[in-house]
Amino acid sequence: MANDTAQASVTVFGDMRSGNCWKVRWTLELTATPYRWIETDIMQGASRTDEFLQMNPNGRVPLLQLADGRCLAESNAICWYLAETNEWLPKDRYDRASILQWQCFEQYNHEPNIAVARFIRQFLAWPNDRVDEYHAKQAGGHQALAVMEQHLSDQDWFVGDCLSLADVALYAYTHVADEGGFSLHDYGALRAWLARCAGALPDIRNV
Amino acid sequence: MANDTAQASVTVFGDMRSGNCWKVRWTLELTATPYRWIETDIMQGASRTDEFLQMNPNGRVPLLQLADGRCLAESNAICWYLAETNEWLPKDRYDRASILQWQCFEQYNHEPNIAVARFIRQFLAWPNDRVDEYHAKQAGGHQALAVMEQHLSDQDWFVGDCLSLADVALYAYTHVADEGGFSLHDYGALRAWLARCAGALPDIRNV
Repeated sequence: MANDTAQASVTVFGDMRSGNCWKVRWTLELTATPYRWIETDIMQGASRTDEFLQMNPNGRVPLLQLADGRCLAESNAICWYLAETNEWLPKDRYDRASILQWQCFEQYNHEPNIAVARFIRQFLAWPNDRVDEYHAKQAGGHQALAVMEQHLSDQDWFVGDCLSLADVALYAYTHVADEGGFSLHDYGALRAWLARCAGALPDIRNV
Repeated sequence: MANDTAQASVTVFGDMRSGNCWKVRWTLELTATPYRWIETDIMQGASRTDEFLQMNPNGRVPLLQLADGRCLAESNAICWYLAETNEWLPKDRYDRASILQWQCFEQYNHEPNIAVARFIRQFLAWPNDRVDEYHAKQAGGHQALAVMEQHLSDQDWFVGDCLSLADVALYAYTHVADEGGFSLHDYGALRAWLARCAGALPDIRNV
C-alpha cells in the first residue's frame, strides 16, 4: 500500500532517522494502511513548534493523525492502534499481553539506554557534556540485550511463532545498536533473530 | 473480591511500596479478580533470586503468574491483561489506544523521573553518589507533570469520561510525587484530578 497520499486514511509525522518512527512505518506497511508521511526534522525543532505542540503537547514524534484530526502519540500505542483491526494482533489474550510486555520493556529498559546512546554518539556527535551519560548507558543497554538473548536462546520470535509487534518494537534500535557503541558479538541468538526480522520486515528505506 | 487465596485465579509478586505494584493491585480490585499476593521485598533482593529470575529474567516486580504457571511482567501489560475481558477497557478503538498512549507516556516520561527521584530520596535515603541524579530528575518530572496539567485543564479524566487504566497508571506515582521532592502547588487541575482518583479507586492499603 505504501506511502499513498491520495488514498491516505492516516497521516504520520515522523523522522526517518528515529527507531521509534521506523516501528510505525513498518507497521503501516505490514498492515497495508494507506498513509501520508510528513517528514519532521527533530534536530531542527520541528516537533517543538507551537503548531506541533497543539497536536502533541509532549513534543515528540512519531505522531499519528486520523482523518478527523484526532491525534495519537507514543510509537507502541500507534502500532497497536494500526494492528488491532487486522491479523497483526494475535487472538490469544496472553499473547496480546505478552506483546505489550515486550513493548513496555523496550520503552523502559532498552530505548532509554540504546537509543539515547545512539543519539548522543550519532546525532549529537558526542558532545563533552554528554560523554559521561553515554558511558553510563552502556551497562543498562547490555542488560537489556542480555534479557533478549536469554529469551531467544530457545525461541525464534518474542511472542508466538512468527514476527509480531514485539519484534518490530525491539528490532528498531537493536539493529542499529552498533551506532550506540553496542557490539552484538557476544549475542549469537540475537544476531540470528535480527536476520530473521530483516527477512520478514518490509523495506522502508525505499518506499 | 480482594486478596482471596482460596479462590485465587492468579498470583502476583509485588512490593507494596512500589507504585508500579499499586497499579496492578488497584486493577485486580477494580476487575474483581480473585488473587494471591506474594509480598516481594525488592530492597532485600527478592526479585533477583535465581528462583525469581526463572519467572522474570528482567528481575522486576510486579509479576503476574497464571494458574498454569505462565508469567507476565510489566505493570501496564499486566493491567491490560486483567482488564481486557471486562468493562475496564473501553470498546472504542481510539480510546483503547489512548490508554496505551498514556501508559507509555507514564513509563517513559513520568516514572523514570518521579518514581526514581522518590526511590533515591525515600528508599535509599539520598546517598551521596546519587544526589546529582536526584536533582537531574526534577526537570524531567516537572515536564511530565506539565503535560498532565495541560490535558486536565479541560478534561476530568485522561481517557473518556470516567476512571480508566490511564488514570490508574498515572495516579500511582503522581499521588506520592512529594516523596520525590515534587511540589504539586502549581498544578491545580492535577490536584483536582488526584482527588477524583482517590474517590474512585479502591483502598488497597487495607485489603
